[in-house]
Formats: sequence, C-alpha cells, structure tokens
Amino acid sequence: VDQVADEPPFRSIAIAGLGLIGGSIALALRDRWSSCRIVGVDFRGVQAHALSSGAIDRAVDRLADAGPADLIVLAAPVSRNLELLADAGRLAHDGTVITDVGGTKRAIVRAAASLPRPSAFVGGHPIGGAEKGGFGFARPDLFRARPWVFTPSPDAPGATLERLFGLARGLGARPVTIDAEAHDRLMAFISHLPQLAATALMQVAGEGAAAEGLRLAGRGLVDTTRLAASPATVWRDICAENADALGEAIDRLIALLGTARAGLRDGDAIDALFDEAGRWRAELMKGRT
Amino acid sequence: VDQVADEPPFRSIAIAGLGLIGGSIALALRDRWSSCRIVGVDFRGVQAHALSSGAIDRAVDRLADAGPADLIVLAAPVSRNLELLADAGRLAHDGTVITDVGGTKRAIVRAAASLPRPSAFVGGHPIGGAEKGGFGFARPDLFRARPWVFTPSPDAPGATLERLFGLARGLGARPVTIDAEAHDRLMAFISHLPQLAATALMQVAGEGAAAEGLRLAGRGLVDTTRLAASPATVWRDICAENADALGEAIDRLIALLGTARAGLRDGDAIDALFDEAGRWRAELMKGRT
Repeated sequence: VDQVADEPPFRSIAIAGLGLIGGSIALALRDRWSSCRIVGVDFRGVQAHALSSGAIDRAVDRLADAGPADLIVLAAPVSRNLELLADAGRLAHDGTVITDVGGTKRAIVRAAASLPRPSAFVGGHPIGGAEKGGFGFARPDLFRARPWVFTPSPDAPGATLERLFGLARGLGARPVTIDAEAHDRLMAFISHLPQLAATALMQVAGEGAAAEGLRLAGRGLVDTTRLAASPATVWRDICAENADALGEAIDRLIALLGTARAGLRDGDAIDALFDEAGRWRAELMKGRT
Repeated sequence: VDQVADEPPFRSIAIAGLGLIGGSIALALRDRWSSCRIVGVDFRGVQAHALSSGAIDRAVDRLADAGPADLIVLAAPVSRNLELLADAGRLAHDGTVITDVGGTKRAIVRAAASLPRPSAFVGGHPIGGAEKGGFGFARPDLFRARPWVFTPSPDAPGATLERLFGLARGLGARPVTIDAEAHDRLMAFISHLPQLAATALMQVAGEGAAAEGLRLAGRGLVDTTRLAASPATVWRDICAENADALGEAIDRLIALLGTARAGLRDGDAIDALFDEAGRWRAELMKGRT
C-alpha cells in the first residue's frame, strides 16, 4: 500500500483559472483524493460548468475571496498570474504553498521574491497540455506520464518541494526540478519555437494553397500544424515574457531554413540535414510510444 | 453490386520500387483484386520480403525483365523514376498504361512527351504516406480515404484516365486530376514546406535542448516533428525538382517567422498571427476527424 496514496499533500486547494490546465488539475485531484476541498476562481460561465461537473466544491469570482487554503495554484495566463501573485501572497497563511502552471518561469520567480513570505512560492509547469484551451477540454488524465517541472528558489524548504512532488505524482506526472532561467531557455526550443513554427507554417500553407488546395493535404501537414489551433490568449504572454530566448531560437530556425533553401538542388546537403534531424528525432522518441 | 468491384482495371501490373508506396499498392491490389498478376522490381532483399508476404507473384531485378503488363507503376524515388520511364516505354505494348507515384510531377510529365507512345503515361501522386519508408512499413490501407492525384496531359485518352481512377478507387483512394505545374506549386506549400520545416525545427530543437532537454518535451514537439523521420532518399529528389516553388514557400515562411520574431513583445501582433493561422487550421480540418 502506497502511503502517499491515502494522504493528500494538500487538503484545501484554491485554483485561480479553470482552463485546460487548472480544470484538469481540479478533475485529477477529485479523482485522486476525494477528500480534497477545491475552490475554483474563474468567470461565472466557467464556474457553473466546473461546479456541475463536480470538479470543484466552491466557486468564487476573485482569488481574494477564496478563503484559507493549503495550496494556491495560479493557472491563468502568464501575465495574469503575475497580477494574481500578490492576492495569493495576501491570502496565504503560514503553511500555505503557492505554485503556478505557466509556460515561462523567470518573471514569476522574480516577482515571488517580493512576497511577504517568498519561500511559500515554488514555480511549476506541468508539460503537455493540448492545443485546445478551456475547461471544456480539461480531463483528469492530462498529466499522466508527463513531466511536471518545478523551479524552486535555492531557499525553498525541502518539505514544500516534497509536498508538490507528491501532488504531481498523485496526479500521474513525473516531477522534476530545473532552474527558472534554464527552464525558459529550454522551453524556447522544445515548446515555444515549435508553437510559433507550427502557427507560421499553417499561415503560409493556407495562403499558398487556399482552402481548395488544403483539401488535398495529407497527414503530414495535419500533424505538423496541430499546434496552430492553440489559443492566442495563452501564447501572447509567453512570447512576450520569453522574447529573448525565443527570439534566439527563431533566429536559428530562420538561419537553418535559409541554409536548406540555398541547398535545395544539392542532394548531399539535403541528405546531411535529414540525417542529422532524423537522429534528433530518434533521440526525442527514445522511451516514448 | 458495384461492377468495378469485380473487374480489375488492370490484370497484370509491374511495380518498379517496393518501398512504402509501391509495396502498399501491391498489398492493396492483392486485397482488392486477388486475380491481378503483380510483378515487383527491387533489390533482392526487398524481393524476398515482398514475395514471402504474398504482395507480389514474381520478382525481377530490372524493370526491363518484367515482361508484358497492362499497367506499369514507377514507385522509385523521383529521379530514378525518370530513368525508369525509358525502360517502361520500351516494355509497354499497345494497351499498356504507365503511371508513377512521385511527389513532383512537372519533370516526369515533360519527360513522358518523348516516349514512343506519350499518351500511355499519366502522372500520379497518391497523397498521404507516412514518415517511415520501405516495404516493412507498407500496408494495404495506406490509400484509404486519401486523395490520389493524377496529372494527365491534355491528349491523355479518357479511357486511360478512367481505368486509373478505377484503380485508385479500388484501393480506397479519392482520385482527382490537376495540372502538373499546379500540382508542384501546391505540394510545395502543403507537403514539401511542412517536411522541410519539421526537419529544420527538429534540428534546431535538438541542438538547443540537447538529448537531456528533449526528454522534457511534450506532445507538441513530438507531433510537429513527426516528419523529421522521413527518409532523405525520397526528399533529396523532391527538393531538387521542386526547388523553384519550394524555395518561394520557404522564403514566405522565413519572412513570416521574421515578422513574428519582431512582434514577440507586441501582444496584438501575436493575437493576429494566431487568429489567422487558427482560421486556416480550422479550414484544413474541415471534414477530417
């Protein structure tokens, strides 16, 4: 019997933002630890949906009204989380842990240093998600077998991190820690650049082929542009916050596309590009199905 | 009762190249019209595999040795198909139809004008495929519900096209016709550009994240770079042959990535890009599941 299985690491949880990630956390918590009390913060329409689905016990309009909580999860878009952080700091009691789920970590980790009790905050980023946002797409298995990155400050108490690891594991994820700076740089390459590349590719392909031409597209374009359905509300903040690292990643992609373009008639150059990219693809797929 | 269902449009078929596409045509023919006689042309190792799987009745080393056939399918890489076209022309008798499955069509349609009987040739391109090449990945349902493009010359006999449509339909595909020039331009945007973008993205992400970082990648990168596993042998020819149209498509992607990069901190610019790309994505997905 897994001891962790029975005791929730947090008994009362406030989740600010019941979109895909926040909503899925609520649903997964409900599945895993039925004794948890969950308060959700979002617009009225979302509140009704989340309440009727049983994902949350109580809904409020503003985080400030959530009442005492062992854990506060900021799950709004990145720039909104920065605003909510101050509310979370005011709401927190001595044992409260604050985390977030944003795709960029430097800004919020920096901002958390100004909290009344800075060590209450540990940045988080459950990786995975899907291209469709909103509570309607939330599901309790969203985090299963996915990494859940935490970016603790050097002075974060080990016990806090342990509880967050327990939360992530309980929801099926694989918790890992990484420095906030390194996180943002890494995400620029493995998450933010793929998003922008897929979006730009969809736009160029659509304009070049027109609606009629798109009907002849095969699975390749469909898979390669899946992320182009992602909501701008999430990504405008991430692009702005990680503009330096993402900009460098885009520059590298532009440079490589330029090289490929110059070598289109040079079979050896194309071979070399495909061979090297194929090796990285094999590396990416190691241990995945 | 579908009359076409019982009578194969071609009784004896020679397939030059038993890779993913040629092998899948053989398997699909076998499933659909068991009375077809199928001769396969490929290297010895592939011959053994294709014979033992029952995909073909007979294997030969060279197309010239295939003997008489109602249909000759050129299913080698694009530049090799151009070489095989002359052999096919010599092998063809009065009623023989010649087609190919290459991803570019202008060059082979032009070359077919020099055949002894130019009207025997109708260019073809079954769209879809997969990122893994070779007979080992061939499967009889590869063409199901996928477009199969034919690029007939103006003087191609209607009866020939009708037989090829019957073949494509029998194998589960949706046959359509399109001019060779328009085909190559369209494919630059919906097939060749996605391929190169996925390959370049995988390379940049791999170098930026390193092997350890790739382990934290979510489904987004995995889907967006699926095509990066594609074989260079297929793509070096396509890149070279369609360099003009593909070059233009790459230029447009580079330009749009540059615009996105310049607007990373401009939320409205990011919103506009995501909204427009999202609309094209919705258009692409119309009628798909």
